[in-house]
Amino acid sequence: MRNLKLEIEYDGTNYCGWQVQTREKSRPSIQEIIEKTLRKILQEKIKLIGSGRTDAGVHARAQVANFKTRSSIPKEKLQRALNGLLPGDIVITGAEEVPLDFHSRFDVKTKVYRYTILSRSYPSALLRNMAYFYPYSLDLKLMQKAGNLLLGKHNFKSFQASDKKKRLAVRTIKRLKVTKDKDLIYIDIEANGFLYNMVRNISGTLIEIGRGKPLDIRKLLVAEDRTKAGPTAPAKGLSLLAVRYK
Amino acid sequence: MRNLKLEIEYDGTNYCGWQVQTREKSRPSIQEIIEKTLRKILQEKIKLIGSGRTDAGVHARAQVANFKTRSSIPKEKLQRALNGLLPGDIVITGAEEVPLDFHSRFDVKTKVYRYTILSRSYPSALLRNMAYFYPYSLDLKLMQKAGNLLLGKHNFKSFQASDKKKRLAVRTIKRLKVTKDKDLIYIDIEANGFLYNMVRNISGTLIEIGRGKPLDIRKLLVAEDRTKAGPTAPAKGLSLLAVRYK
Repeated sequence: MRNLKLEIEYDGTNYCGWQVQTREKSRPSIQEIIEKTLRKILQEKIKLIGSGRTDAGVHARAQVANFKTRSSIPKEKLQRALNGLLPGDIVITGAEEVPLDFHSRFDVKTKVYRYTILSRSYPSALLRNMAYFYPYSLDLKLMQKAGNLLLGKHNFKSFQASDKKKRLAVRTIKRLKVTKDKDLIYIDIEANGFLYNMVRNISGTLIEIGRGKPLDIRKLLVAEDRTKAGPTAPAKGLSLLAVRYK
Repeated sequence: MRNLKLEIEYDGTNYCGWQVQTREKSRPSIQEIIEKTLRKILQEKIKLIGSGRTDAGVHARAQVANFKTRSSIPKEKLQRALNGLLPGDIVITGAEEVPLDFHSRFDVKTKVYRYTILSRSYPSALLRNMAYFYPYSLDLKLMQKAGNLLLGKHNFKSFQASDKKKRLAVRTIKRLKVTKDKDLIYIDIEANGFLYNMVRNISGTLIEIGRGKPLDIRKLLVAEDRTKAGPTAPAKGLSLLAVRYK
């Protein structure tokens, strides 16, 4: 038995997300597309374990997933075969053999997400699925200052999807950087784990702060109440940039 | 009567090109979509003149077009109205009033095109419609050296679509730069005019040269024979970056 780890880039626009969502069944999930393709190539039933879910419309530069197989196919050949059969919006960017006990989800040390905002008065045709078009000016210093208050170990319940109240919501944000490159503003967040919608809720809140709304991050964290923070920023601005392992 | 100049960004993937092509009638042209939308907003028949055609699948960061109207609508309002009604893959990035004698095509001083190559062993999901995936390594120095020989005034018949043999094929290339940014190679070409398929034919030729094929640019230019140069690189790698006026 071998354990193979895949690195995957995808454009999430046409999918219901990484994993099948209970809410939507009309579009396929990325995981099921890759599983089916693996099955076709390896002629065995494959269970693909992702590092975690991404929502409908969310993208990945480097999602990680692993699966076990009895096949002895060389990893380069498997990668080429997968890329030959997968649709163009899902690409295997790397394949490597890992120890049998490696687990894509349980072994995560940190993940890095990027939220991309197009900050100008008119939208973009080329980035229409990749960035959240926000036509009002944003104060990056205010956003970074607020972001700095999120660094470290906190209960992020105020930034968790409101329908997920019962789980433990303590996470550690290691890095949060707000940067600008021409018309694009990036919010990069690295943490040991993310709650459902956490990056989109933090981004929505930082956008409101950047626009001038006097939200107090310290009070928001203590409130542990989703209704106090800003709105959930749209999925299309979000990308999973990297998954780091122990 | 007013003359209005539009700057337009588009993702050409879903269109038959800027203008209706005789070969294809199943997909709309970008020009006709904008004309129809202008007609809807201004309630008058509009003739939109582009700086030149782009092919099916070719993109633009800044195509330029102008039209005459009797309407007194402010340019900012017109831009917003157009962007509100146009599909997401066509965006008006600027609108300004120009002298009545301004003509988007006749007054062009130079145009800048960029050809984008994804140079790595596996494709990209996020750039699948924006770059030509080329999995073999390329020698940029050879490409630039060959490109330098194209600079200046030449008869580019060898780089013109082979079905267009009768027109005058003398053009002046002002700038040709081959650059690299991570996995992406850019061929940027600025000229006073371009023949049909000229950038794609030059790019296909430079790619062959970068791969090691000993094509002699000087001989190719003198041959005035399309069959001597390299293949036509795919449309999706091509973008019109800028149109400059006198």
